[in-house]
Amino acid sequence: MTDPFATNRADLRLRFATEADTALILEFIRSLAEYEKLADHVRADEQALRRSLFGDRRYAEVIIAEHHGAPAGFALFFHNYSTFLARPGIYLEDLYVRPEFRGQGIGREILSCLAGIALDRDCGRLEWSVLDWNEDAIAFYRSIGAHPMDEWTVFRVDGADLSRLSASNREQQ
Amino acid sequence: MTDPFATNRADLRLRFATEADTALILEFIRSLAEYEKLADHVRADEQALRRSLFGDRRYAEVIIAEHHGAPAGFALFFHNYSTFLARPGIYLEDLYVRPEFRGQGIGREILSCLAGIALDRDCGRLEWSVLDWNEDAIAFYRSIGAHPMDEWTVFRVDGADLSRLSASNREQQ
Repeated sequence: MTDPFATNRADLRLRFATEADTALILEFIRSLAEYEKLADHVRADEQALRRSLFGDRRYAEVIIAEHHGAPAGFALFFHNYSTFLARPGIYLEDLYVRPEFRGQGIGREILSCLAGIALDRDCGRLEWSVLDWNEDAIAFYRSIGAHPMDEWTVFRVDGADLSRLSASNREQQ
Repeated sequence: MTDPFATNRADLRLRFATEADTALILEFIRSLAEYEKLADHVRADEQALRRSLFGDRRYAEVIIAEHHGAPAGFALFFHNYSTFLARPGIYLEDLYVRPEFRGQGIGREILSCLAGIALDRDCGRLEWSVLDWNEDAIAFYRSIGAHPMDEWTVFRVDGADLSRLSASNREQQ
């Protein structure tokens, strides 16, 4: 089986993050949020990141890309699940390459690595979400074989609505 | 802490599925696919379901709703992750109530149960996807406090495109 982390590039190294990368991951998350114009939505801190990524139950995995040894970008993913396939998939929650490292194919290398991990783990799909205004990203994703799930919309319940929904089955009758 | 599975209804019981429910879960998956007009996409069989839901690594969890002891519906969910919150969430992949049991609030009871599980596990969100033509479902979801993530589209790579993407980092140079 081919190592998904293997590349032909001497300038680039891809590896799984460890707990020692927590501060770096937080920096990447904040930078990505700024790029997405969502910086005021970030509630993450180092303690919560460490607990949820490297604690007793690990809810997601992180890949770090290093360019000549310098942290250049990251990807955070978890396993989703397809009932139609009865197989897990990989859902890429965040992909970010620092501006000074863009245009060198690093994002593509990370996606290729994730596709390799998906195949290694018998996953049927690799998926992620894109902001509709991000045309450059969409053109790039189409070029690597991704297609939009146009007919679906994600609905979300959070905050006070989540508590209200939880309590509703005891209030109704 | 309140039991998320507790309801005020004597006619209804919600419980986690066990391996003995595998055939029932497959029947629910196929029925939902027919309703979604996607029946020809179902590749799941009992063996793959059993392995992925009740094997060494369990990729998703299933709730069964019983009405007066008869299986009436199911929900399949897994944990996703929010980097902005540094917390897991719950993603509801499938929710299905058999036609003869609809209109009795069973779907709402299941969603309320899921919201309770989300709170118990310190999750920030409960999310799911809806087909854009399913206006009845959308109206219902809005009524329980859900809001659409309209500005995002999911992109997917699968099949031969996934293999091609995996191989691309060794072909480029």
